[in-house]
Amino acid sequence: MEPSAQSSDIRLIGLRGVPEVTQGMSLAALVIASAEATGVTLEAGDILVVTQKVVSKAEGLLIDLRTVEPSDLARRHAERWGKDPRQIEVILRESARIVRMDRGLLIAETRHGFVCANAGVDASNVPGEEMVCLLPRDPDASAERLLSELAQRLGVEIPVIISDSFGRPWRMGIVNVALGVAGLAPLVDYRGQPDDNGRVMHASIIAVADEIASAAELATGKVDRTPFVIVRGYGYQPGVGSGSELIMPAENDLFR
Amino acid sequence: MEPSAQSSDIRLIGLRGVPEVTQGMSLAALVIASAEATGVTLEAGDILVVTQKVVSKAEGLLIDLRTVEPSDLARRHAERWGKDPRQIEVILRESARIVRMDRGLLIAETRHGFVCANAGVDASNVPGEEMVCLLPRDPDASAERLLSELAQRLGVEIPVIISDSFGRPWRMGIVNVALGVAGLAPLVDYRGQPDDNGRVMHASIIAVADEIASAAELATGKVDRTPFVIVRGYGYQPGVGSGSELIMPAENDLFR
Repeated sequence: MEPSAQSSDIRLIGLRGVPEVTQGMSLAALVIASAEATGVTLEAGDILVVTQKVVSKAEGLLIDLRTVEPSDLARRHAERWGKDPRQIEVILRESARIVRMDRGLLIAETRHGFVCANAGVDASNVPGEEMVCLLPRDPDASAERLLSELAQRLGVEIPVIISDSFGRPWRMGIVNVALGVAGLAPLVDYRGQPDDNGRVMHASIIAVADEIASAAELATGKVDRTPFVIVRGYGYQPGVGSGSELIMPAENDLFR
Repeated sequence: MEPSAQSSDIRLIGLRGVPEVTQGMSLAALVIASAEATGVTLEAGDILVVTQKVVSKAEGLLIDLRTVEPSDLARRHAERWGKDPRQIEVILRESARIVRMDRGLLIAETRHGFVCANAGVDASNVPGEEMVCLLPRDPDASAERLLSELAQRLGVEIPVIISDSFGRPWRMGIVNVALGVAGLAPLVDYRGQPDDNGRVMHASIIAVADEIASAAELATGKVDRTPFVIVRGYGYQPGVGSGSELIMPAENDLFR
């Protein structure tokens, strides 16, 4: 049976048929072609979630490790933990601050302010044995560009979230979060709205962009090449949007 | 146009028509009735996400603050920050360890091992001015009971996730995570599986139960009374399941 119109019914549609993305490719063209191949017509109200990896590939953010000269620090860490010193060097270059450097793992704050393993430098799903992939330089600008190009081609504004999987303190496993956001409010503030009993709620700023990124991961999988997911039927709050709004200023972070 | 069968297509269906839950109510009966009211038939492959609040209410985990005698510590903290000392006392009783106690906020490790604001003690969406709600004593057992009762009534095993919204370090806003899990593997390990380029991936244990909880929140909303969400079409990995698998042992937590 189909749910009635009153129930909230959100769909997460993974788009198929996306080729290996290389530098200079138009992501908007790829989204439109893969939507067509999947049999989906993009429409107003949809949200597009794109994995960081294809954004970085389209932007040419692959580094050939054969061109990298490791520093002494990179060499020493790599030697102690059996790592590639050139990859460690790339991680250090991407870092604004080293948060933890232990047991062969490197947790860093990136130039953008994200705290994540290896400053987001990643060798998985990158073609070539000697290549690693960096995070987009400005994920919000990347999201905004994709939104604009899609709007030009489709005549409809589809919010864009650029996602990546991050570890986090206290809990096992990684989950997808939003690095870049365009076209929707990444935080929705329920404070001041009465709850069902008429009382004002507290601590109810929801990081919906992160939740949307996590939801989309379920339709992406890690092994299948599904970098684009359409989220349909979620009544998002329109806004300029910015992934940097999701970064907690250190001085306010009681969890830190 | 409808997506073709090959594309991954996941649905998040919020069930409507759930009454105020009180102690002793059968959640399984409520799920079945609200599914019917929504026009949804539960089927194999579905996952049920239930917000913690209704589980706690059904289990009678409301505390009347008029019965609580605050300790000196609770009084002093409450006085300094303009809080209700009885509510602080309940939070302290629910805590195994105080992680941070500053600027009027209390972040605690609960008896279960969850690290969250106010040890999960919450006054929102709780009837009565003087009542607060505790987390379920054993969320995995609660999930398992609901799975069993649904299986008895429906003849099909529907995995259950009990969710709550938690803050986290580094990032703004709260997101829903899985407290209790039954019937599915909360962590899916892609390590050792080759990526698209035949290379082995690293750091790819995905906390799918947390991602499912976050996805479901999008269909729940905070204000509407939608405590049950059906996740349909996600090819979950069956398993006994346990939310405690999602708690990172302190000694392994490099993010901490």
